[in-house]
Amino acid sequence: MVTQIYHDLDQIGFRARQASRLLARVTAEQKTAALLAMADALEQSVPQILDANGQDLQAAQLAGLGPAAVDRLRLNEKRLHVMANSVRDIADLHDPVGETIRQWERPNGLQISKVRVPIGVVGFIYESRPNVTSDAAALCLKTGNAIILRGGSEAIHSNVAIARALREGCGQAGLPVDSLQLVSITDRAAVQAMAEMDRYIDLIIPRGGRSLIETVTSLARMPVIKHYDGICHVYVDRAANLAMAERIIVNAKAQRPGVCNAAETLLVHEAIAAAFLPSCAEALAAKGVELRGDERTRQILGENVTPATEDDWRTEYLDLILSVRVVPDIAAAIEHIERFGSHHTDTVVTEDPEAADKFLREVDSSVVLWNASTRFNDGGEFGFGAEVGISTNRVHARGPMGLEELTIYKYIVRGSGQIRS
Amino acid sequence: MVTQIYHDLDQIGFRARQASRLLARVTAEQKTAALLAMADALEQSVPQILDANGQDLQAAQLAGLGPAAVDRLRLNEKRLHVMANSVRDIADLHDPVGETIRQWERPNGLQISKVRVPIGVVGFIYESRPNVTSDAAALCLKTGNAIILRGGSEAIHSNVAIARALREGCGQAGLPVDSLQLVSITDRAAVQAMAEMDRYIDLIIPRGGRSLIETVTSLARMPVIKHYDGICHVYVDRAANLAMAERIIVNAKAQRPGVCNAAETLLVHEAIAAAFLPSCAEALAAKGVELRGDERTRQILGENVTPATEDDWRTEYLDLILSVRVVPDIAAAIEHIERFGSHHTDTVVTEDPEAADKFLREVDSSVVLWNASTRFNDGGEFGFGAEVGISTNRVHARGPMGLEELTIYKYIVRGSGQIRS
Repeated sequence: MVTQIYHDLDQIGFRARQASRLLARVTAEQKTAALLAMADALEQSVPQILDANGQDLQAAQLAGLGPAAVDRLRLNEKRLHVMANSVRDIADLHDPVGETIRQWERPNGLQISKVRVPIGVVGFIYESRPNVTSDAAALCLKTGNAIILRGGSEAIHSNVAIARALREGCGQAGLPVDSLQLVSITDRAAVQAMAEMDRYIDLIIPRGGRSLIETVTSLARMPVIKHYDGICHVYVDRAANLAMAERIIVNAKAQRPGVCNAAETLLVHEAIAAAFLPSCAEALAAKGVELRGDERTRQILGENVTPATEDDWRTEYLDLILSVRVVPDIAAAIEHIERFGSHHTDTVVTEDPEAADKFLREVDSSVVLWNASTRFNDGGEFGFGAEVGISTNRVHARGPMGLEELTIYKYIVRGSGQIRS
Repeated sequence: MVTQIYHDLDQIGFRARQASRLLARVTAEQKTAALLAMADALEQSVPQILDANGQDLQAAQLAGLGPAAVDRLRLNEKRLHVMANSVRDIADLHDPVGETIRQWERPNGLQISKVRVPIGVVGFIYESRPNVTSDAAALCLKTGNAIILRGGSEAIHSNVAIARALREGCGQAGLPVDSLQLVSITDRAAVQAMAEMDRYIDLIIPRGGRSLIETVTSLARMPVIKHYDGICHVYVDRAANLAMAERIIVNAKAQRPGVCNAAETLLVHEAIAAAFLPSCAEALAAKGVELRGDERTRQILGENVTPATEDDWRTEYLDLILSVRVVPDIAAAIEHIERFGSHHTDTVVTEDPEAADKFLREVDSSVVLWNASTRFNDGGEFGFGAEVGISTNRVHARGPMGLEELTIYKYIVRGSGQIRS
């Protein structure tokens, strides 16, 4: 059984590598045309996809999945049109492949160009909604990468039907259908086989919970781009505009609490804590936010605020809960963030440019902000058009990942007979 | 025993992380001063280092190491001065940390800067000469990264003495001594422990043979930068300047055959094979190069040329041996390179710009050259000043790795109270 899985995956890998070689040579126009054909094919396959989705929904109900999980799984005609339009949006983006990143001449006359090229073959392992299938495939095709998709078993029928439609569209536009392949083996051995296939897969991107990412990370022989937790902070400095600070923390916490760039901890300078916290707590309460405070916060807000433990500083609630700590100065705020944070997104609110500068320089997170909500750590908000995710890696891609981060470069050197002496 | 190794490594990792936080905040001047102090400390420790090296040499002789291996291990006063000067050269280079890579403003007024920062903690696992200890430490310190070094057991005493001197110099200049740490545990479990420490190590760079790289790659939970084989090609097109082609292949093969950017295979267009090969074979023979030819090469050069098998196309000789194949056209040359090559370095020799263009575009190697020797795939030749190695990765760093490739970026976002709606 496992031998068969390895054999099947090897075939998939081989075909992906072949397709990626062709993809690396096609024009931007050909890729755009293929993406538009893929979007059309999705819409033409609505009945087949909904039928397959029905099978997944039935299995989910038999397996006793909760209503939220079932809803995430559910497709309908409208959701499929949204998926198709999202593929069209990606088709419209600027293609980074072929760009000259830098160019210089050496004293011996060699002309060197650093040129953006596709990475090759990307493995995508996910456990999320079926729309990830089309989004991930479109992002990779746009950047000339072949993709091997491996979704969760709960959405297997939907994913197979979506991938079939996308491959048809891709083939109709004259690009290799193996530009995208879906692994239909739901056995977990398939994840292991993919993770070991560094001959064929150049990069793996797992999208899902911490345990999926950890599993892939331990098994993978190739680089993994991780999208770990965001334990994000808002620090309200002594020189903050307090009304602005309140708007920012309410937005960072409550505008969409279930995402990685939502704030989890509020740090407040002691000099303005008594002036700031009561009104801020009221504004947060109005949004349904529950507070967990340190001792000094509770002295100001009252004993009915739940005490925060050290665990709270390390927790990504992804919920309407906020931990609050009063700190003696900006250095203590930075120290707290470096010790308990996840180097994801952190904001300072202050009118003092020197304090801001210190914070922006010393906080080592993928995105650090001054007087703005943590929620802006986002590919769309950065103007990238599309987003693969928010990487917590410290090599290759950090923070919001757009199309550029799905590329690498090669060097092209033009000479006139130079040799080394 | 293994538990103790994990415990010790954990301590080393913790200290490296602490040091890296301080290092990320120091100025370029402080790092330069520390590097100069480290170079001085190396020279002041000549007696201690030579004494330690004597112990390694004695052990090597007892273990029956060959004379070439013993020579690689041997240090003397002159070699130590070369090492110190190499550290001074790195001190002189431009520091990439703090550079603004890109800067833009969003319609909502947010100002986004993408700024170069250190990666964090780099693990360096090597089995080469003791000078790697000081080179790797200097490159990492220059870029604000803490480094954990793990050299081979045959050089352990030398490496410990070198690291001690470097740490002293670093401390004297006011930077944390734990900016560089050497793992003195020669047990292989130490490599495994390092490879699993993704809490503390952000990137691992193994330098050594294929089996070391493979071991680290299978064990590592963090990204690995690989420096695999170079199976490099020179393709002599039908429109080549034949005298230039001869100079280039002789240089690419024979100038320094034991390195990864030396050529291993010569591909010749059939239209000029009869005109080119005899004189070229003579020039190569004059350098002591042995040929392995395909059938058509042997028809031209004679039956005393050893026949090439498919294995030859896949072999990195690292020696004065060259495989030769006659191909019907440029497409066949590209196909051969993509099938048998290692995507490292490949050259086309031609006077036809269209043929050159096709080759440069379609050959998917870290460096592709037109009318120049493969030997130019090199950090020094690219003008990078120093070289970490030549990466065969397809993420983060590809081809010659300089200081920039030891950095990553963070985004700094300046606002005026923006929130998301």
